[in-house]
Amino acid sequence: MPKISLKGSKMPSSPIRKLVPYAEAAKKRGTKVIHLNIGQPDIKTPRIALDAIKNSAIEVLAYSRTEGSEEYRVKIAKYYAKHHLKVEAEEIIVTTGGSEALSFAMGSILDEGDEVIIPEPFYANYNGFATANGVNVVPIVSKLEDNFSLPPISEFEKLISPKTKAILICNPGNPTGYLYNKEEIEQLAELVKKHNLFLIADEVYREFAYDGKQHYSLLGISGLEDYAIVIDSVSKRYSMCGARIGCLVSKNKEVIQTALKFAQARLSPPTLAQIASEAALDTPQSYFDDVIEEYVSRRDLLISELQKVEGVKVAQPSGAFYCVVELPVKDSDDFAQWLLEKFNVHNETVMVAPAAGFYASEGLGNNQIRIAYVLEKEQLKKAVHILSEGLKQYHNS
Amino acid sequence: MPKISLKGSKMPSSPIRKLVPYAEAAKKRGTKVIHLNIGQPDIKTPRIALDAIKNSAIEVLAYSRTEGSEEYRVKIAKYYAKHHLKVEAEEIIVTTGGSEALSFAMGSILDEGDEVIIPEPFYANYNGFATANGVNVVPIVSKLEDNFSLPPISEFEKLISPKTKAILICNPGNPTGYLYNKEEIEQLAELVKKHNLFLIADEVYREFAYDGKQHYSLLGISGLEDYAIVIDSVSKRYSMCGARIGCLVSKNKEVIQTALKFAQARLSPPTLAQIASEAALDTPQSYFDDVIEEYVSRRDLLISELQKVEGVKVAQPSGAFYCVVELPVKDSDDFAQWLLEKFNVHNETVMVAPAAGFYASEGLGNNQIRIAYVLEKEQLKKAVHILSEGLKQYHNS
Repeated sequence: MPKISLKGSKMPSSPIRKLVPYAEAAKKRGTKVIHLNIGQPDIKTPRIALDAIKNSAIEVLAYSRTEGSEEYRVKIAKYYAKHHLKVEAEEIIVTTGGSEALSFAMGSILDEGDEVIIPEPFYANYNGFATANGVNVVPIVSKLEDNFSLPPISEFEKLISPKTKAILICNPGNPTGYLYNKEEIEQLAELVKKHNLFLIADEVYREFAYDGKQHYSLLGISGLEDYAIVIDSVSKRYSMCGARIGCLVSKNKEVIQTALKFAQARLSPPTLAQIASEAALDTPQSYFDDVIEEYVSRRDLLISELQKVEGVKVAQPSGAFYCVVELPVKDSDDFAQWLLEKFNVHNETVMVAPAAGFYASEGLGNNQIRIAYVLEKEQLKKAVHILSEGLKQYHNS
Repeated sequence: MPKISLKGSKMPSSPIRKLVPYAEAAKKRGTKVIHLNIGQPDIKTPRIALDAIKNSAIEVLAYSRTEGSEEYRVKIAKYYAKHHLKVEAEEIIVTTGGSEALSFAMGSILDEGDEVIIPEPFYANYNGFATANGVNVVPIVSKLEDNFSLPPISEFEKLISPKTKAILICNPGNPTGYLYNKEEIEQLAELVKKHNLFLIADEVYREFAYDGKQHYSLLGISGLEDYAIVIDSVSKRYSMCGARIGCLVSKNKEVIQTALKFAQARLSPPTLAQIASEAALDTPQSYFDDVIEEYVSRRDLLISELQKVEGVKVAQPSGAFYCVVELPVKDSDDFAQWLLEKFNVHNETVMVAPAAGFYASEGLGNNQIRIAYVLEKEQLKKAVHILSEGLKQYHNS
C-alpha cells in the first residue's frame, strides 16, 4: 500500500475530535449534552442576509471572480471605512472563510522550515495550517494570571531567528477572549518593523469588544502598511459560520498579488454565500448592539458562576465569546471524557474543549479548558452547575 | 519590507490572466468579446437545486460537519451506486470544490520535493496546487495527433523515480476532452500497483462522455482500493461552478483519515451550497440527456467548422467540453492578445486560452489554444469565423 505523506501524518487532529464519539454515545444513552466546546453562535443570522439568497434571481450558479465579486469588495471597503480603517477594494481578496485567508497568507510569506511566532494559547487550527505549509510554530506563553495579555516584547525578541518570517496574533483572542490594547499593538508594530517581519492579525472577532474598550486593527496603524496582513470573516460577525466567506486584507501589493495566485488555483469563493455576505453588510448597528449586550451578560454570568466553583480560576475576557478556565484537575482531556462517559446530573452533562490543543508547548494547558459562551444564560448556568458537580465527583472517583 | 515566500514567487498565474486586461479594454472600446476561454457552462443550473436554497428554513447559517453533512454524503454514495460504483458515505469527504479535494489529496500523499506524474496538456491549476504543496510535476506528453490518448506505459515507467508518489489523470480531460478507455485505466492501475504509487483521477466531467463511449472510474477497478483517489465536483455536472462543492473519494482509510485532518483545519465546506448540491442529486436523467445532446451537437459543429480553417489541426474529443486546437501561428499567446487588442469582425472578437499554460514542459503548446464549447451553436460558429479571419490578417500583420 502506498504511504501517506510525512506532512499528512503530522497534521494535528481537532482538540475535541476524540471526544466526539463519547458525546455521541452519551446522546445515544439518552443523556443531553450541553456543548460548551464549540464556537458556533446560537444567534440568528441577520434576516437581510438570508433573504438576499431567497430573492436571488440566479439561473446559472456561476463562478465569481477569483478575488471576490467587485460589488462585494467595494462594500467591504466601505465597512472598514465605517470602522475608520482606510482600505481599498484592491487590497481585499475574498476567501472561503477566514481559514482560507490564513492559508493564503501563510503560503504567500512562509516557506518550508520557516517560523511564525504565535502567543499561546491560540486557535488550534493555526497548527493545522502551519503543518500543511511545512511551517514551524514558535509559541510564546501568555498567562491566565495576566488575562492572557501580550507577553513582554523582550520575550518575543528572544525567539526571533533567521527563520522567523512572521508574528501571528488573534485579536480579540480565541480561545483567550483577550483584547489587545493600543500600546500592545503598537509595540508589535515596532517589533516587526525593526526585524522586518510580517504581522498577521486574525481580527474575525473585531466587533466583539466589551467594557467600552476599543478594538485596534492593524489596518489603523500608520507605517505598518507593508508589514500587516489582516484575516477577516463573516462567520462570527453575522453568525453565519456556514457561509465560509472571509477575506485577506493587505496594503502590501506583493502580498496581494501573491495571495491572488493561490486564489486563482482554486478559481473562486462560493457565489451564494457572497450574495448573503454582501447583504449582511447592511445589517443595522442595532443588531450588533443587541448581540454584544447579550454576549456581555452571558460572559458576566458565566464568569461569576465559575468564580464560585472551588479550585477554578478564570481569566476575564474583554472580547470574542470564549474564556479559558483552569480546573483543579491534572488532565482536562481525561476529565472532559469522563464528563461525557461517566457523569450526568438529571441525565444532562457538558462537553468542554480541553485546552492542551490550544498550546504548542508540550505540557501546557493540561489543567485548562476553553468555554464558548454561545448558549443562553439559563443553559450556561446549568452547565457550570454540572461542571461544578462533576469536579466534586471526579475527584472522588 | 519583508519578503514574500519563495513558494509564493513560484506560484503560476492563470494562463489567461494576462489577457484579461486586453479583454476589458476591448469591451471598453465597445467591441464584443466572445469567450471561448472559460469552462463556465451557459447551461442553466437545475431548478431543483436553486429551489432547495430558496425553500430552506435556515435561521442560523451554521457550520456543517467537517466531512460534509451526513445526509449529503449518504446521497452521494447512492449517486455512485447508480453509476455501478460501490462507495460508502465514510469513504467520501465533501470539499470546497474539486479544487480543495485535489489540494487535500496532494497534502495527504505528497511531501515537499516529491513528484507526481501528469500527462500533459493538463488542467493548469494542477501546477498551482503542486507548487503550493512544494511538489514537483513530472509531465508526460500526450499528443494531438493521438487525440491526447494515454502515452505508452513504458514512457511512464521511465519517469518513475524514488521521489514519485503518484500519477494524476483527468478523465475525461480538461483541456483535451479525451476519455480514457478501459484498457488505459487498467494499464495505469497495474502500473501504480507495481510501483506502489497512488493514482488520482479527476473525474469531475464523468457524465460528459460522448459517442456511446463509457466512462471508466477508478472506483470501479477492483484491487485498486488502496491506491485510488477520486476527485469529484458538482461544478460542471449541474452547471453550478459557483457552489464550490466537490468531494474526495477513497477506499484507503488512511487517506481519508489524513485528508480529514486537512479538512478539520478549515472547519467545514459551505453550508448553503451543500443544500443545493444535495438537491441537485435528484436532477432527472432527462436533464443530462438534454445537456449531453447539446454539447455533442456543439462539439460536432465546432470541430467541423475548425477543420475547414486552413492550417488548423484539432483533436477529436469524446468527453468534457473542451478541445485543443493547433493553429498556424508560432505564439498563441501573442495571437490571443492580438485578437483582443487589434482585431475585430463587425466589432466582435474572440478570447481564447493559449495552451502553453496547460503544459509543464517548456516550449510545448505554443502553437495551440484551448476552446471551451460552452456557448450556443450560433455563437460558436461566429467565433470560429472570427478566429479564421483573424488568422488570415494576423499572418499579414
